[in-house]
Amino acid sequence: MTILYAADPAESEAWIGSLRALDPKLDFATWPDWGDPDKVDFIIVGGRSPGDLSIFKNARAIQSTWAGVNHLLKSKFPPGVPIARMVDQGLSANMVEYLVYWVLDALRQGRELRAAQREGKWIDLPLRWARDFPVGILGLGTLGVATAEKLVGLGFPVSGWSRTAKTVAGVRAFHGAGQLGDFLAPLKLMICLLPLTNDTEGILDAKLFAGLTDGAILVNAGRGGHTNDADLLAALDSGKLAYALLDVFREEPLPPDHVFWRRKDIVITPHVAAITRAGTGAEDILENYRRALAGKPLLNPVDPSRGY
Amino acid sequence: MTILYAADPAESEAWIGSLRALDPKLDFATWPDWGDPDKVDFIIVGGRSPGDLSIFKNARAIQSTWAGVNHLLKSKFPPGVPIARMVDQGLSANMVEYLVYWVLDALRQGRELRAAQREGKWIDLPLRWARDFPVGILGLGTLGVATAEKLVGLGFPVSGWSRTAKTVAGVRAFHGAGQLGDFLAPLKLMICLLPLTNDTEGILDAKLFAGLTDGAILVNAGRGGHTNDADLLAALDSGKLAYALLDVFREEPLPPDHVFWRRKDIVITPHVAAITRAGTGAEDILENYRRALAGKPLLNPVDPSRGY
Repeated sequence: MTILYAADPAESEAWIGSLRALDPKLDFATWPDWGDPDKVDFIIVGGRSPGDLSIFKNARAIQSTWAGVNHLLKSKFPPGVPIARMVDQGLSANMVEYLVYWVLDALRQGRELRAAQREGKWIDLPLRWARDFPVGILGLGTLGVATAEKLVGLGFPVSGWSRTAKTVAGVRAFHGAGQLGDFLAPLKLMICLLPLTNDTEGILDAKLFAGLTDGAILVNAGRGGHTNDADLLAALDSGKLAYALLDVFREEPLPPDHVFWRRKDIVITPHVAAITRAGTGAEDILENYRRALAGKPLLNPVDPSRGY
Repeated sequence: MTILYAADPAESEAWIGSLRALDPKLDFATWPDWGDPDKVDFIIVGGRSPGDLSIFKNARAIQSTWAGVNHLLKSKFPPGVPIARMVDQGLSANMVEYLVYWVLDALRQGRELRAAQREGKWIDLPLRWARDFPVGILGLGTLGVATAEKLVGLGFPVSGWSRTAKTVAGVRAFHGAGQLGDFLAPLKLMICLLPLTNDTEGILDAKLFAGLTDGAILVNAGRGGHTNDADLLAALDSGKLAYALLDVFREEPLPPDHVFWRRKDIVITPHVAAITRAGTGAEDILENYRRALAGKPLLNPVDPSRGY
């Protein structure tokens, strides 16, 4: 009856401490000192794939501390073990803040204001209205819906696109490949919040950009693998995209010699949009541990065939 | 029966056009071609004082297109004429956007992110929580309350201070000089949204800054006359304030040789937080014109003895 902590070593004290605070009787081992693998009944994983987990044949569940699990699904698991991902409220609040911040930066022309101050110029900036600034969200999961709701509350026309049909109050919802063009056409700013799967890998490519209006703004807060980097640079060079804000990259940290660093039309944030914190995520993990031991369905289950 | 338009000449077509669209029978004159002053029954004024309005002795009301009327109150009016200011929804929405934008910029460390990108550095930025970032609003009028409500919705602890006692849901409200210290002490960021009056002129001074926690952030979206410029520079130099965001200045446009332009710890925006637009403000003006003719109390009346 041991919980094996195999997530980020720098966060092990925070997670194990938060879980012990909820239930002092819990027993933990930390990767790679798991002792007898047969005693491990629950495995906590994080931002990197632990590789082969198949030796833990008594594990009742795998719990990720991350919302995105594309990296994790490359691991080997004991057959039939259920996997859960983290969808905590803190993470959602962080993502909403981050995206509302950058949408307002785009609307209120923070880039132009900063350039004017660098030049010591008092500029006459035409005020733009949120109601004339349509924002689209690619991916209507928990984070996408929470973000859409706050943007609607600020007066933006918000639309969303998802693989399967969804309904969100106040949001114009599109779904499936057939409706992607209608979703893209009116947008001034498009946010990618998709999970990374075989279907969505490289979805931010020339074909998608061509569906946007000239001078649109791209925000990728999904995964670096969504971006076709060469197509992005071409869309910026041609003026199809005014600029891109990227929080996620194919290689992280973004290598110092990467061309993105030198672009004035790419805003780089170092994967800071949203981070799950032990304090708010531990309750969900403990709940899933209890469900796993009781053989009940997990909170926020991952469907490996779907990829998230 | 003539409405005299004496506000910004550059906006005369927009305002008169919007009003005519609502009522084609309205008759207008534009400053200084008012014809017979006795026929003027309503005067629209804007961002600059028109000086002496006392010759328009049949004017039933003065309507400002601006929310702030401190400049206007230096004019001479026909005796006993009621004055109304503009408090339109568009203006309020603009101010809320602007302030939510800069509060999120402070919380999510936009300045640090931009500095890191300039240096090509992938930084490890500790995520901060809105719930640990108390924001205070000096001035709980229409704009202050609307801003407070949106910040509460994003999870910030919000407090407000006003001259007289007010109650706003979810906001810790302080009032009067006696409670200013308690209001200031916990704040990480303080917004000034006060009207400019004899009581509030220069209120952002050394004494007020001393009440803030070290490293607090100041946002002035009220009027330039609220800021004691020398005290502000001293508070920045001493580290009492981390930085200041100023949208309003004692002289606008801010003169090219002003010391503020050269400070890295002053963010300058050229009085763009909120602008009343003819489209959304015309309905309120027409309503006030009708009320004035009917001798009814105006929407958003100004109390000259109070100064707003």
